Amino acid sequence: MNLKSLIRDIPDFPKPGILFRDITTLLRDPEGLRYTVDLFVQKIKDAGLTAEYIVGIESRGFIVGAPLAYQLGIGFIPVRKRGKLPAAVHSIEYALEYGTDCLEVHQDALHAGSRVLIIDDLLATGGTASATAKLVQKIGCKLEGFGFIIELHDLQGRKHLPDVPILTLVEY
Amino acid sequence: MNLKSLIRDIPDFPKPGILFRDITTLLRDPEGLRYTVDLFVQKIKDAGLTAEYIVGIESRGFIVGAPLAYQLGIGFIPVRKRGKLPAAVHSIEYALEYGTDCLEVHQDALHAGSRVLIIDDLLATGGTASATAKLVQKIGCKLEGFGFIIELHDLQGRKHLPDVPILTLVEY
Repeated sequence: MNLKSLIRDIPDFPKPGILFRDITTLLRDPEGLRYTVDLFVQKIKDAGLTAEYIVGIESRGFIVGAPLAYQLGIGFIPVRKRGKLPAAVHSIEYALEYGTDCLEVHQDALHAGSRVLIIDDLLATGGTASATAKLVQKIGCKLEGFGFIIELHDLQGRKHLPDVPILTLVEY
Repeated sequence: MNLKSLIRDIPDFPKPGILFRDITTLLRDPEGLRYTVDLFVQKIKDAGLTAEYIVGIESRGFIVGAPLAYQLGIGFIPVRKRGKLPAAVHSIEYALEYGTDCLEVHQDALHAGSRVLIIDDLLATGGTASATAKLVQKIGCKLEGFGFIIELHDLQGRKHLPDVPILTLVEY
């Protein structure tokens, strides 16, 4: 299956000059959704990753990560924006183009030694994924790898990520 | 499996006096996640619903709805807060306790006659689910039903929803 044919380009979103890769058209397609999840599962197994938890980044990472956790038979843990999680959290601030943002995970969701796989829809500059990696590594988790549907090569996000397997399905 | 034993109560979140039902502990548990999705699939089949699309409400509805769409072999369509979706949208404003909020869906995601099942984690007052129902009905979709992991009975959210099957897994 040609995943790119199901991903739509939206010019000038979220701001002028940005070409947004829209996966909603892929998720809407039953075969596209199934193939995306099944291909991820295959790549995770081929890479020999033995994660206990999918850590999904709010909010498109939820859409990809939850079926992956279901199909792998492991747990799903959301990493969310500030103030969204109800219990005690670990937080990490990270730099955006302008200002900073914050990601949080429940303190009792992960422990030292937990084996995690971080999932999001897209690897662009790597800022969000890198912050999430720091968050789980601060807890002492073993980061097994990352998974993204899409990688934007020119932005060199890989350079900002730890040296673990980075699984991607589609590259631009 | 006792789903309630995996759902955690958090007092005074998001504000004093509210007892928040936290499903992150359920999602984190591999058997809990699997049982939740499989039980939903069974209830959908038992009710004879033949949805073509899961419409998941941002953002906990994504975590429940995406594996459900995957397992049912149908498409997943996100309903999001204002400004998050990149292409042309249909919007609906709805009243909150203070002020209003807005939900959006891509204009080309659904069509008149599309059979949809609306999924969220929790049915409380029904405001968000009711707005989502109006949004898809405005498009002319056939609303097959709703699915929620949790229903808070005392808030009588059902009263505000259209007369279609409402599937729930846990009631308080």
